[in-house]
Amino acid sequence: MGSTAVSVIGLGEMGRALAGALVTAGHPTTVWNRSAARGDELVARGALRAATVEEAVGASPLTIVCLLDYDVTDALLRPAAGALRGRTLVNLTNGTPAQARRTEAWATDHGAAYLDGGIMAIPPTVATPRAFILYSGQKRHFEAHRESLEVLGAAEYLGAEVGTAALYDLALLSAMDHMFNGFFHSVAMATSHREGTAAGFTRFLVPWLTNMAQMMPTFAADVDSDAEPSFTQGLDVVLSGARNMAQASRDAGVRADYFERSVAALERQCAEGLTVYSAPEAVRDLRTTSD
Amino acid sequence: MGSTAVSVIGLGEMGRALAGALVTAGHPTTVWNRSAARGDELVARGALRAATVEEAVGASPLTIVCLLDYDVTDALLRPAAGALRGRTLVNLTNGTPAQARRTEAWATDHGAAYLDGGIMAIPPTVATPRAFILYSGQKRHFEAHRESLEVLGAAEYLGAEVGTAALYDLALLSAMDHMFNGFFHSVAMATSHREGTAAGFTRFLVPWLTNMAQMMPTFAADVDSDAEPSFTQGLDVVLSGARNMAQASRDAGVRADYFERSVAALERQCAEGLTVYSAPEAVRDLRTTSD
Ligand SMILES: NC(=O)c1ccc[n+]([C@@H]2O[C@H](COP(=O)([O-])OP(=O)(O)OC[C@H]3O[C@@H](n4cnc5c(N)ncnc54)[C@H](OP(=O)(O)O)[C@@H]3O)[C@@H](O)[C@H]2O)c1
Ligand SMILES: NC(=O)c1ccc[n+]([C@@H]2O[C@H](COP(=O)([O-])OP(=O)(O)OC[C@H]3O[C@@H](n4cnc5c(N)ncnc54)[C@H](OP(=O)(O)O)[C@@H]3O)[C@@H](O)[C@H]2O)c1
Repeated sequence: MGSTAVSVIGLGEMGRALAGALVTAGHPTTVWNRSAARGDELVARGALRAATVEEAVGASPLTIVCLLDYDVTDALLRPAAGALRGRTLVNLTNGTPAQARRTEAWATDHGAAYLDGGIMAIPPTVATPRAFILYSGQKRHFEAHRESLEVLGAAEYLGAEVGTAALYDLALLSAMDHMFNGFFHSVAMATSHREGTAAGFTRFLVPWLTNMAQMMPTFAADVDSDAEPSFTQGLDVVLSGARNMAQASRDAGVRADYFERSVAALERQCAEGLTVYSAPEAVRDLRTTSD
Repeated sequence: MGSTAVSVIGLGEMGRALAGALVTAGHPTTVWNRSAARGDELVARGALRAATVEEAVGASPLTIVCLLDYDVTDALLRPAAGALRGRTLVNLTNGTPAQARRTEAWATDHGAAYLDGGIMAIPPTVATPRAFILYSGQKRHFEAHRESLEVLGAAEYLGAEVGTAALYDLALLSAMDHMFNGFFHSVAMATSHREGTAAGFTRFLVPWLTNMAQMMPTFAADVDSDAEPSFTQGLDVVLSGARNMAQASRDAGVRADYFERSVAALERQCAEGLTVYSAPEAVRDLRTTSD
């Protein structure tokens, strides 16, 4: 346990949480960051500081990268390509499936094993039971380092197609982004009222959203099936609700463009003769290519 | 228990669930619906059918209305105004705070007690512990009928300002609408992949969103406070993520306009010199009136 040496490149909020978890778990941990001072606390806790990216990569069989984006990742790793041969690179930087595929091809060209990943956690939940991390790439690379990776959070292997972790990561983040924007919108509405506090409103909001999220497996089954959807709503009820959300937003001094677009889309669907709202229809409506 | 007679006007999906719960709880229940046949099952279970709205209102001290919208509600109730005197009207039809205020004024003019409400449930969860219903209006009207109202789901009284239930209802629905649109977007992305099923992806999505919803009380406390927000993210990380979501959506054949708007807004904020993303800033950004 904790015997594999691991290097961590990138000590931002997330990189520090990852490196800290490895140190805590007893892995010999080497760290590098552009602004070296961000590694001071880790070094005080026993991590080794590398002077260069190349030195960091050379210090361990497994290097974990967590940087701002793939442009930064490319700029830092390309000059250190020689040190990667025979080693494993796990890139947890947020990126697209295409970037993951390109980086895997580059790493393979340089004799390195590559895994791409997506961190489904925030820094304070890293290495807690609430964190999970998605991985894709060659299964043997994942299996070889699974034990070290499990230190960071539950390791979910999604298959050999290296872009899948990024695809699912961005899909999950897109759902979170919508949910948080909904939180902001609803709080802006609720606090427009003289006595409304965000905390008072959120007491209703969290159980409500948690409850409604329980419908998603039903929606998902409807999307996967060719049969009639098991869950539908009358398009007139949905349209009336969207109009009310738009109007109440405007009345509350809250930007209503999001709901005005919904109203326009629903009116278009009604005009086209649709009468029910269902998950498969909503998903189909988002595709720019036909199924 | 179950002694108060209750009338229910509107037997759509939701009205039938409400009336059914009252029948089950032993309340003498009178029902009316434009399409009378939708009441057949309730009548078979012991409900009384009224021939007109006026007859329904006259049959019970408490009338609950659940119709498509306030236009329908107005059209049906105005001719029956005389029967309302000395009785209580609880309107659970979805509407705006302004509509609630207008309807309270009208009901008061006709000598009726009025409560406005918002149903935070779907028909199958009515009268289960997962349902709650928001009410506003005069407290004595609420207290007078609390016992009957609790049959439908936990009754949450929000105060005398009669528009508050509608405001909170529409705010909660707006958060749900965003969350469901996020679900549809993320599923469209995840199922663009050859092997991706909505069900397989949703296995990750529900715990992820449930987890992330736990951050909302922290966000809310930040919104309510004038101090520095306790939760912030680098605007560059957020912008990079938004760009990746937009790009990966386009690559997956999924409409990216939602994220393209986010990217544009974040770029504008960066250009204005902002460096961090926080809940108070996100809420402020939605207001069309300055605080
Ligand atoms: N924070 C989260 O909640 C979270 C959750 C899941 C995934 N992620 C992902 O994790 C990654 C890192 O996020 P973070 O929150 O740790 O961000 P952060 O705190 O802003 O850290 C960014 C990292 O990138 C480095 N960097 C930026 N520009 C650079 C450049 N031009 N040259 C060299 N290094 C550069 C920074 O180095 P300096 O310290 O020298 O600036 C730092 O190590 C992102 O892809 C993010 O999407 C974050
Ligand atoms: N379903 C939900 O999950 C849910 C959840 C919370 C709140 N609500 C709210 O509850 C209300 C009813 O929703 P629902 O799901 O029950 O909708 P629904 O099944 O479509 O029922 C609509 C009701 O309105 C009546 N109606 C419509 N147009 C009418 C007209 N011109 N004249 C007379 N009656 C008319 C319908 O009568 P007919 O049967 O004769 O058409 C029916 O009773 C809405 O305000 C909705 O927002 C619904």
